[in-house]
Amino acid sequence: MSGSKIGKQTFVFSQPPVLIGHAAVAGKKEGEGPLGSSFDQISMDSYWDECSWEKAESVMQRTVLALAADKAAIPPSRIEYLFAGDLLNQSIGSTFGHRDSEIPFFGLFGACSTMGEALALAAMTIVGGFAEITAAVTSSHFCTAERQFRFPLEYGGQRTPTSQWTVTGAGATILAASGLGPAITHVTPGKIVDAGITDPNNMGAAMAPAAYTTIKQHFEDTGRSPADYDLIVTGDLGSLGHTIVRDLFKRDSVTLQTYQDCGLMIFDRERQQVDAGGSGCGCAASVLNGYLLNAIRDGRWSRILFCPTGALMSTTSAQQGESIPGICHAVAISTVG
Amino acid sequence: MSGSKIGKQTFVFSQPPVLIGHAAVAGKKEGEGPLGSSFDQISMDSYWDECSWEKAESVMQRTVLALAADKAAIPPSRIEYLFAGDLLNQSIGSTFGHRDSEIPFFGLFGACSTMGEALALAAMTIVGGFAEITAAVTSSHFCTAERQFRFPLEYGGQRTPTSQWTVTGAGATILAASGLGPAITHVTPGKIVDAGITDPNNMGAAMAPAAYTTIKQHFEDTGRSPADYDLIVTGDLGSLGHTIVRDLFKRDSVTLQTYQDCGLMIFDRERQQVDAGGSGCGCAASVLNGYLLNAIRDGRWSRILFCPTGALMSTTSAQQGESIPGICHAVAISTVG
Repeated sequence: MSGSKIGKQTFVFSQPPVLIGHAAVAGKKEGEGPLGSSFDQISMDSYWDECSWEKAESVMQRTVLALAADKAAIPPSRIEYLFAGDLLNQSIGSTFGHRDSEIPFFGLFGACSTMGEALALAAMTIVGGFAEITAAVTSSHFCTAERQFRFPLEYGGQRTPTSQWTVTGAGATILAASGLGPAITHVTPGKIVDAGITDPNNMGAAMAPAAYTTIKQHFEDTGRSPADYDLIVTGDLGSLGHTIVRDLFKRDSVTLQTYQDCGLMIFDRERQQVDAGGSGCGCAASVLNGYLLNAIRDGRWSRILFCPTGALMSTTSAQQGESIPGICHAVAISTVG
Repeated sequence: MSGSKIGKQTFVFSQPPVLIGHAAVAGKKEGEGPLGSSFDQISMDSYWDECSWEKAESVMQRTVLALAADKAAIPPSRIEYLFAGDLLNQSIGSTFGHRDSEIPFFGLFGACSTMGEALALAAMTIVGGFAEITAAVTSSHFCTAERQFRFPLEYGGQRTPTSQWTVTGAGATILAASGLGPAITHVTPGKIVDAGITDPNNMGAAMAPAAYTTIKQHFEDTGRSPADYDLIVTGDLGSLGHTIVRDLFKRDSVTLQTYQDCGLMIFDRERQQVDAGGSGCGCAASVLNGYLLNAIRDGRWSRILFCPTGALMSTTSAQQGESIPGICHAVAISTVG
């Protein structure tokens, strides 16, 4: 088995790695949202029985991987390499989550696009002939993100209408060289795109140009069009970013008929007061590994393009007046060849 | 071309990807050290003509990649995929450094082991058949690391004898499916190992068990022994960690004859007041891409095992009383098959 590249930057897998197991865990608010029933575990306690939110996020990473392995009917010890990341400084959600796992570990940082990056590398490891079974895991937690990137929660800072709500959630996917389940047929890894947006409360606008660039490149490289997918779904652009992507394609006379965004799907914006929608590494990860992959297995869709998006910024870069570069990786998942 | 796995966790490349270009840049203090003449560029200005140290680190990432491409005699646009990381929160050294590069980007976090992780994935991308040319880049900067992880520099905090000095430096490697130069024959990606050390001023001791575990696994998987390498070199364990690794192998009745550490090589500890030695993603990266690869090209060594080590902690994990998990990836570089 080996891979190849088509066009400028897209990997194509002639023997697509199979997603033999997947799981999602989420917090209370996410559990009360429209996708609540698709999560394998929902915690009513934001601390997940730990003494800090950071430790809770590590528990989420560990729990969701165990659940995914269980659903794949394999012992976690059969996972040969693990690709994981999160939003916390120095990725402590992932590293502390898996420190006792005994699985060779690749730490990743792609902000909220990390699930796409992890799936890409986990798939390449199998297709390249390096492993039979790999896993991809990412997470985010509203409380760890708020206090790291914005304000202490106790401060009760005001939110702007363009701000997004960091999802408390995690998703894990188990990939295998063979087996039953949907498979990854193509990956278009993204470039960094900086449109000059400097408002950290408007990350949808900052990430939208990256999503547009990667998806457009995916179509060019593969010769596919929006009609080839039952669903195109971006990571967490929220309402504003989602509209911008649609508009950018309209300028090219391309209509995205079935285009959704994980940040819009996970919450009911009318009812749940999340402003522009959900965000965080755990948003795209929990929507994919909960709702989307369940729906593919149930036969609702047979081919989707999963495009998580990340805002590559830090509090330091924002304080130094830098703009917010974005990135997006596109992963084609299909039940058919 | 495709890869395979031998033993428990080691990749073996039957057609080893070639390191067609490599470059290292460093700061003033590193330039005054024993390896000063091996760096391609040394900056006397810690700001590298920028207005902040973080922006300086981004310039180092960009500069070192351009220098490596130049030495490989390829335009940077021929690099198909870039693997990069650093120590800064949300990896802003890398993401801002390459935001205008137009190269599809994989962001990594493995603390000071990141150069090993980046080389592993850049090599796998080629061996798996996904690209002809890839690149790996990492960096660190004394001033960005001190103020992020320890104290504002102006505070003049006291240092302990076990503390290490974060290297201001960056290294880049260009890998290709064919060409002239040393090649990567094996990679043993590491597991996270936590020995329970809680002192952030003694990271050598925290990382040493991970180095021992990965190197031991490498020998088991490949059937090789220390005698098969002209040099085994860990990332940046410093004097204490270096001694611990040697002692751990001694317990197994294994003698590491030619064992060095990048953190000990880059500074003259007698003269330069760096306590236990150098550290940071840029330490192993600049020593490899400056001194080590130059020496291999000059015929001094024909086979080395490069084992950068990382301490997977953050200020938050330390403040919450957590121990410091370590990781180490082993990369076998050889001029012969």
